[in-house]
Amino acid sequence: MAYTVCEKGCTNTSDYRVYIKNDAGPISPFHDIPLFANEGNKIFNMVVEVPRWTNAKMEIATKEPLNPIKQDVKKGKLRYVANVFPHHGYIWNYGALPQTWEDPNHIDEATGCRGDNDPIDVCEIGYRVAKRGEVIQVKVLGTLALIDEGETDWKLIAIDVNDPMAPQLSDISDVEKHMPGFLKASVEWFRIYKIPDGKPENQFAFNGEARERDFAHKIILETHEAWQNLVLGTSDAGGLNTSCVTVPNAANKLSIPDATSVVQSSPEPGAPQAVDPKVDLWHYVSLK
Amino acid sequence: MAYTVCEKGCTNTSDYRVYIKNDAGPISPFHDIPLFANEGNKIFNMVVEVPRWTNAKMEIATKEPLNPIKQDVKKGKLRYVANVFPHHGYIWNYGALPQTWEDPNHIDEATGCRGDNDPIDVCEIGYRVAKRGEVIQVKVLGTLALIDEGETDWKLIAIDVNDPMAPQLSDISDVEKHMPGFLKASVEWFRIYKIPDGKPENQFAFNGEARERDFAHKIILETHEAWQNLVLGTSDAGGLNTSCVTVPNAANKLSIPDATSVVQSSPEPGAPQAVDPKVDLWHYVSLK
Repeated sequence: MAYTVCEKGCTNTSDYRVYIKNDAGPISPFHDIPLFANEGNKIFNMVVEVPRWTNAKMEIATKEPLNPIKQDVKKGKLRYVANVFPHHGYIWNYGALPQTWEDPNHIDEATGCRGDNDPIDVCEIGYRVAKRGEVIQVKVLGTLALIDEGETDWKLIAIDVNDPMAPQLSDISDVEKHMPGFLKASVEWFRIYKIPDGKPENQFAFNGEARERDFAHKIILETHEAWQNLVLGTSDAGGLNTSCVTVPNAANKLSIPDATSVVQSSPEPGAPQAVDPKVDLWHYVSLK
Repeated sequence: MAYTVCEKGCTNTSDYRVYIKNDAGPISPFHDIPLFANEGNKIFNMVVEVPRWTNAKMEIATKEPLNPIKQDVKKGKLRYVANVFPHHGYIWNYGALPQTWEDPNHIDEATGCRGDNDPIDVCEIGYRVAKRGEVIQVKVLGTLALIDEGETDWKLIAIDVNDPMAPQLSDISDVEKHMPGFLKASVEWFRIYKIPDGKPENQFAFNGEARERDFAHKIILETHEAWQNLVLGTSDAGGLNTSCVTVPNAANKLSIPDATSVVQSSPEPGAPQAVDPKVDLWHYVSLK
């Protein structure tokens, strides 16, 4: 299945949205893109929210119809992650696996914390800078277990199956072998990225060690099951928007014309708005 | 004096040029922009060649009339510096001080090596990502003494006088105090940046330590004197183009109409050409 993006509103405004379409029309990247990209269930679709080396915290809008990608807003301001020296923006292509949900009603066995109410996050470590809204196919190599302000927030480590390095990476230990320092930098990044915004250091389960592929696959299956209960209406959706176009037996279905009018009613695209140069500031965070 | 840029040709082609103009017309950023930006001779003009976090190796074309900024070409290919993990592109705004010249006929007392035949290089460490061709005013805080393939290649460390941190930085030791790790990263960057291109590790004089402000100022004055001999015609210019518009007693003067026709005869601007995604590859270099 080939997906395309449809941008609405102006970048760097709270109106900006990236809708995803398949051949028939708009769909939800949260619900309508299959988790599994191949029959062996070992390759996953990933929705890219934030291209590497950028700062705008773009994410699937879980509470809006069709769940477009939009920029996160905190206290009325568009959110940009701080550059913490020596890093520039996000250091991977960052995004989510469709058809997964970290259920906030579920206390994770491994971390003892509740889910963060989002699809599961992915750090894609291939060489190419992906595009916002792109749907790529990834091999999952392992996972970090971030505890972000008290919630379990898995950060899968994955690589685009089309990356030239992909054949040499099949489990988490291969990452350090071929990309020395990258995992350590990733842990450090998540640990400190909110400090410039006045938040405390983030914590990790498993002593900050990344877990292996099989463990990560097990977590993905759990979050996929949680999503199934969400979309079928057997879990409490809270404020999440579970309407979708293609999922059989979904509790909330949208017809293609209805989906089309959701996109049409979103503000028209226009010239990008200027970004405060302060977004480029390099912060120096000293850890004990 | 306010300067503006005039782009000709398409970016990411060997035709691309950035000419610099003053109020009267085109000028040479190598020869016509004053080195000193204030009367106390402590603030310098800097011509930005490479904005922070970019890869295209743009530089003042010392051998062309009016010395526009163009992308360096090696073995017929446009040059992009490699991203060496954890760095992304150049980690400062990189450029040159006008009216300076590292004379290749002169063997430097401190390094024992000849000059590299270019204006002196500057790493500007302010928070703002500057624009290609921008002329900014900087405080020079110190210098690294890179030995690049056997030639002396000073790398001044400077900060935009308008940066909020500028008042707190007056000498090289202040950099580590306020930007811990940045100088070390800068040394590492220059040491290894050519290794992915198959070149050896670069060396430094002074055991890789940055020298202090007063030493850097002395070096600047020496390179300014060497430039004076160049532009007045008392040094052998080799293949350098020393024609200029405003320098009194210069050996090669261009009239404003002649300067204007140099710019006019340069290819017209057009759509940027695509860049090979391989430019975004992150290289992992392991040093002993």
